[in-house]
Amino acid sequence: MAERYELRFSGAGGQGLITAGIILAEAASIVEGKHAVQSQSYGPEARGGASKSEVIIADEPIDYPKATLVDACLAMTQEAADKYSKDIRPGGLLLVDEDFVQNPPVGDFKVIKMPIVNTAKNEVGRMIVANVVALGAMVALTEVVSRESGETAVLSRVPEAFRELNKTAFNLGFEKVKALIG
Amino acid sequence: MAERYELRFSGAGGQGLITAGIILAEAASIVEGKHAVQSQSYGPEARGGASKSEVIIADEPIDYPKATLVDACLAMTQEAADKYSKDIRPGGLLLVDEDFVQNPPVGDFKVIKMPIVNTAKNEVGRMIVANVVALGAMVALTEVVSRESGETAVLSRVPEAFRELNKTAFNLGFEKVKALIG
Repeated sequence: MAERYELRFSGAGGQGLITAGIILAEAASIVEGKHAVQSQSYGPEARGGASKSEVIIADEPIDYPKATLVDACLAMTQEAADKYSKDIRPGGLLLVDEDFVQNPPVGDFKVIKMPIVNTAKNEVGRMIVANVVALGAMVALTEVVSRESGETAVLSRVPEAFRELNKTAFNLGFEKVKALIG
Repeated sequence: MAERYELRFSGAGGQGLITAGIILAEAASIVEGKHAVQSQSYGPEARGGASKSEVIIADEPIDYPKATLVDACLAMTQEAADKYSKDIRPGGLLLVDEDFVQNPPVGDFKVIKMPIVNTAKNEVGRMIVANVVALGAMVALTEVVSRESGETAVLSRVPEAFRELNKTAFNLGFEKVKALIG
């Protein structure tokens, strides 16, 4: 992992992407003892449908907490992919939900396609955990935190009754990406 | 309101202070069309009990999203008050939960004391909405967004079944502060 790693979770409002960012920041800091900043910035475009959440993880305190060049970006919708893939660093990663991003942007980054919402809906049985499927996928893709740390952070954020559901979602996301990237 | 206004919500983990920050940022941006950044930074101290969430609101895009001098700080616990009141700007504001911050820090800022958790518990009937009582109080104190915008943002974040409860919580917090500061 580089000294400073920047991730962006983008999609539509209401998809739980802020929560996914918070869980990742907690996995890095509370579970693994690193430094992390999680943020969302809202401009007039916040009134539209696209939404994003950012996480910066570093071994040292983070002085400049604004994402500059994104190492890895998740896009759950076409609009988010078009809008938020622009700051991906050369050689970076873009994970898209293949059912909702039918024309992935082209650039100097690697595009990974997988069904995120449909995995949540059809394999976990609850569309609401799509954000946790996405989180598992991003952890597998970037390795910014270990699979165990990610799972621990997920479980500490959800009520008892939803733990199994979220654990399944996280691990399905993780395993599907691992199967894709080998 | 100054060109750039910085708020901090601090207390214990699990008190919903990140949510309070997100709602305020949404009130400023989605409801009122301003720019806002909401963030939490986690260092090794995130493993302890104190937790904070920050919101910056401005009329223009926010280039430097890290809180520098805090205009208004909420502290729900003594530990948070001791730790996070240090960056309040000269002449700024510190709102404390009077039942949990029995020795408010002294500095070049105005301290406002009110019962936050107890208002949620005894007057709303649900301790879990203490963060929304606190949000109403901070809106009344700082006027960074209007009462109506704050309420709209609260209601758009909570499920139908909890709307009345959260509306009551927000307005009780707002009115208690207004009664205190006149």
